[in-house]
Amino acid sequence: MNDIKICVLGGDSRMVSAARFMCKQNYSVSVFGINGIVTEATICNDLESAVTGASLIVLPLPFSTDGIKLFAPLCNFEIKISDIISLLKNGQLVTGGKLSEDFCKKVVQNGCASFDYYLSERLSVLNAIPTAEGAVSIAINETTKTIFGSKCVIAGYGRIGKILAKLLKNMGADVTVFARSEQALTWAEADGCHACTFCCANRHLNDKDIIFNTIPALWMNKNIIDSTKSDAVIIDLASTPGGVDFEYAKSVSKKVIFALSLPGKVAPESAGNIIADCVLSKLKGGLL
Amino acid sequence: MNDIKICVLGGDSRMVSAARFMCKQNYSVSVFGINGIVTEATICNDLESAVTGASLIVLPLPFSTDGIKLFAPLCNFEIKISDIISLLKNGQLVTGGKLSEDFCKKVVQNGCASFDYYLSERLSVLNAIPTAEGAVSIAINETTKTIFGSKCVIAGYGRIGKILAKLLKNMGADVTVFARSEQALTWAEADGCHACTFCCANRHLNDKDIIFNTIPALWMNKNIIDSTKSDAVIIDLASTPGGVDFEYAKSVSKKVIFALSLPGKVAPESAGNIIADCVLSKLKGGLL
Amino acid sequence: MNDIKICVLGGDSRMVSAARFMCKQNYSVSVFGINGIVTEATICNDLESAVTGASLIVLPLPFSTDGIKLFAPLCNFEIKISDIISLLKNGQLVTGGKLSEDFCKKVVQNGCASFDYYLSERLSVLNAIPTAEGAVSIAINETTKTIFGSKCVIAGYGRIGKILAKLLKNMGADVTVFARSEQALTWAEADGCHACTFCCANRHLNDKDIIFNTIPALWMNKNIIDSTKSDAVIIDLASTPGGVDFEYAKSVSKKVIFALSLPGKVAPESAGNIIADCVLSKLKGGLL
Amino acid sequence: MNDIKICVLGGDSRMVSAARFMCKQNYSVSVFGINGIVTEATICNDLESAVTGASLIVLPLPFSTDGIKLFAPLCNFEIKISDIISLLKNGQLVTGGKLSEDFCKKVVQNGCASFDYYLSERLSVLNAIPTAEGAVSIAINETTKTIFGSKCVIAGYGRIGKILAKLLKNMGADVTVFARSEQALTWAEADGCHACTFCCANRHLNDKDIIFNTIPALWMNKNIIDSTKSDAVIIDLASTPGGVDFEYAKSVSKKVIFALSLPGKVAPESAGNIIADCVLSKLKGGLL
Repeated sequence: MNDIKICVLGGDSRMVSAARFMCKQNYSVSVFGINGIVTEATICNDLESAVTGASLIVLPLPFSTDGIKLFAPLCNFEIKISDIISLLKNGQLVTGGKLSEDFCKKVVQNGCASFDYYLSERLSVLNAIPTAEGAVSIAINETTKTIFGSKCVIAGYGRIGKILAKLLKNMGADVTVFARSEQALTWAEADGCHACTFCCANRHLNDKDIIFNTIPALWMNKNIIDSTKSDAVIIDLASTPGGVDFEYAKSVSKKVIFALSLPGKVAPESAGNIIADCVLSKLKGGLL
Repeated sequence: MNDIKICVLGGDSRMVSAARFMCKQNYSVSVFGINGIVTEATICNDLESAVTGASLIVLPLPFSTDGIKLFAPLCNFEIKISDIISLLKNGQLVTGGKLSEDFCKKVVQNGCASFDYYLSERLSVLNAIPTAEGAVSIAINETTKTIFGSKCVIAGYGRIGKILAKLLKNMGADVTVFARSEQALTWAEADGCHACTFCCANRHLNDKDIIFNTIPALWMNKNIIDSTKSDAVIIDLASTPGGVDFEYAKSVSKKVIFALSLPGKVAPESAGNIIADCVLSKLKGGLL
Repeated sequence: MNDIKICVLGGDSRMVSAARFMCKQNYSVSVFGINGIVTEATICNDLESAVTGASLIVLPLPFSTDGIKLFAPLCNFEIKISDIISLLKNGQLVTGGKLSEDFCKKVVQNGCASFDYYLSERLSVLNAIPTAEGAVSIAINETTKTIFGSKCVIAGYGRIGKILAKLLKNMGADVTVFARSEQALTWAEADGCHACTFCCANRHLNDKDIIFNTIPALWMNKNIIDSTKSDAVIIDLASTPGGVDFEYAKSVSKKVIFALSLPGKVAPESAGNIIADCVLSKLKGGLL
Repeated sequence: MNDIKICVLGGDSRMVSAARFMCKQNYSVSVFGINGIVTEATICNDLESAVTGASLIVLPLPFSTDGIKLFAPLCNFEIKISDIISLLKNGQLVTGGKLSEDFCKKVVQNGCASFDYYLSERLSVLNAIPTAEGAVSIAINETTKTIFGSKCVIAGYGRIGKILAKLLKNMGADVTVFARSEQALTWAEADGCHACTFCCANRHLNDKDIIFNTIPALWMNKNIIDSTKSDAVIIDLASTPGGVDFEYAKSVSKKVIFALSLPGKVAPESAGNIIADCVLSKLKGGLL
């Protein structure tokens, strides 16, 4: 075991996995607010013993839902954010997901550094893997056809779009990518997909079985929805409010599935490992 | 529309898709016992008008569960097998799934030919696609990790094993195939998998996350189950009784999922199209 | 045929393909300096008739090797750059590969616009495909092993690195990517490769069969070359001076293959089509 | 090192690799007729010391070109087959490639067993990998287009056809398989290829860029050749006489490439390892 102490506070099963991952990497891990699940770690009875001496303090994703209490669904008592802050000592690195500006400011005021792992490019890329797998699973279960031989649209060719396109192509689907930039469209073609801009999207929708949306902006309006096949299934992977005029889609009996936070749902252990991997990278100060 | 009449009797949503598929191929399709879902077909009011003049009579999968009544869950009356037989005329081709010996004998006695599409190699291969997709979906949902980076075992390297191995490899899993014949093991290696015989199976199980079984013979006995990782998930795709000592697995809290008849569950439309494709191949007398 | 006239001047077999591609897209194509190979186009007898009235003037890649004469190896006479410039009329779009600053200035002075397609992101991505295929072919021919089962390094994870990695992985190679940025390293991992920074490169080289370099900066110095396996093959795809201390590599009998300008060599027709596709995109003013 | 002695006689660089492979597996390897290249083995000065005491005697592929002398191109003296036979002792296993009936009979008469590894299913499957890689390399170099986006035909869907189809599909080609049996055609479809029987082959040839033949029977007759695109390239991978009416193809200026014995040409080391792997499997008496 190396000498570096890491403190993990609160969170759901992802934090359990994150703590285990760090134990396996030989860090000295103290846990508080996850109720004793990680047998390899030191289970602390109070917040102070967990936080004191830790080089890195890992908070959950999201770190809080109300800005007052730590997100700690596996724990039957409350942990106050202000209590954590008051225990911070010079030089500690505090990391968490979706940290508030106010929280970060207070961390810095206490001589510590803050790092929101949810904003890490590495985490976003790696999280696109469970998201794409979850999307594939939904497509398998919510349509009446096989992915093999189906015609799919992916709107957006960022991290999730790219990884999802690869999965669907490898399963034998015919994939069309909708994107805006020339670069995204060119890569979609080089990756073996059809590519088209949004301006001619409705001309390409009438034979598509599944439409995956990864764009967090409403582009599937009345007109676009009317261009889809009657039995097309829409799977919206974009964060709220998503890309679909849901009211209209519902009114015309179109099947729409909102699929948010897939990593924590379909692969909590991997999602936790990804968080641990990213914060350890940060801790080591280097890239990887 | 061509002049050839096809009669489709009973069955579940797969038969609906099969009927639609044949309509699209321009056959004159008569339907009885599916309650008017296929708008492109002629919906018959009685068995006789459906059967009379048909070159091909398509029965469901399975054709019957009791040998007396046709399997017709979408229909609110009974269709007797004996009534079908009494209407047969010389030269008709009768096809269905899991036909009984007795039924086939009677078909022949009436001057007709019978063909069990469930025994068709083509159907078996094509059905392995929805089966493998269904298995992947189960793996995504029932484990806490991503398929990407997971260590999987596939026991058996027949149709399902081969197609499933390809899917899992393409998703980034590390795949080990257990098989008996040198040929199967060599192909598994050529397909990029690790390969090992069953005799050393237990030596390769202690780090595997998911075990897919495709072999309809109990090989996962007490000893083998004890060799698996504590959190390994077993997905049994083999027909009853499957390959797992379920009682023992349960007694040691091992997660076992029995996944039977996946094509009809995860892709009824494709499953119906596959049936239609296979019987039309047979009807044309040629290979394809 | 649409009313837009395109003029193609000089170049090698890529320009022949580019001209054909544009003919197939129904442009009115005039050709000068390629000696009558494109039967669908109008073969001009003089420069003036080719250039006059053309909306787009397409010059070869490179447009010139000496800045004075057009690059025109398929033509037995000389075409002077200055003659082209003197024929330009307001509003024409002049495109070519590796255009000089001086040339572009003169084009603008004549009221025309210039566009160097060699700088186009789309061309660079699409050209990475023939480059990666050429690299694979070299690897097949210049090593004594199959790609299947071989251990490969790819230095750099830009366009060529990404496409080459996918090809090699799909052929059954074990691929390690050397890169600098966290983003590149993370994508390499998400794409199923091993990833490491250059600082620990030498620790990962001693069992690698093939090293592909895509980085145009000398990183394979004495020390790195000494870390490679005695029979490792180095394939340098980066533009001059490449990434390898060639003198040293030669002195220790290391096999190094310099592979430049692969698109024109292994796929001149595709390379020409890519040029045509990119300039037509530009002509249409839109993205694609 | 284990106690089992293996003797390797003659052959080209594949035998060198085979001998090295067996050394690495800790066998005691004696070599004669390859001129001292395998430093890990015992280099014998005479045939007798090499053969005596060996459990396994490995002859090259082919074992002989004239039935009298061993095939030994790396050796500057002759080794007579009859001398080898006269040295055999009860219980030795003699293996080689393309053994003659006469030779096998004599081996048995001397109380030994013979095994032609060239007839091994395992070797045939594994050798299909370098064959397919070699075919891909030829296609990259002998056509003017990228494999990506090209339209390919593969005639025959046996070992080579299957592995080649996978490589080409993964590179972005559109692949059509010509085959006879319903099973082969169905697998081609399940593997994402188009499939058609030979009877309608000529209807599918007029837009194909590359035609790979794996069938050792002349099916590409005048009529078929006339159905191909003018610039189509034919790559014949089938053993003599191949599948192409070469005289006619030549007379109409069709590009035909005969590509035989690719494993030994593009991957002699892997080809040798494959031979060693197969004979060691046989020696161990088990499957693998």
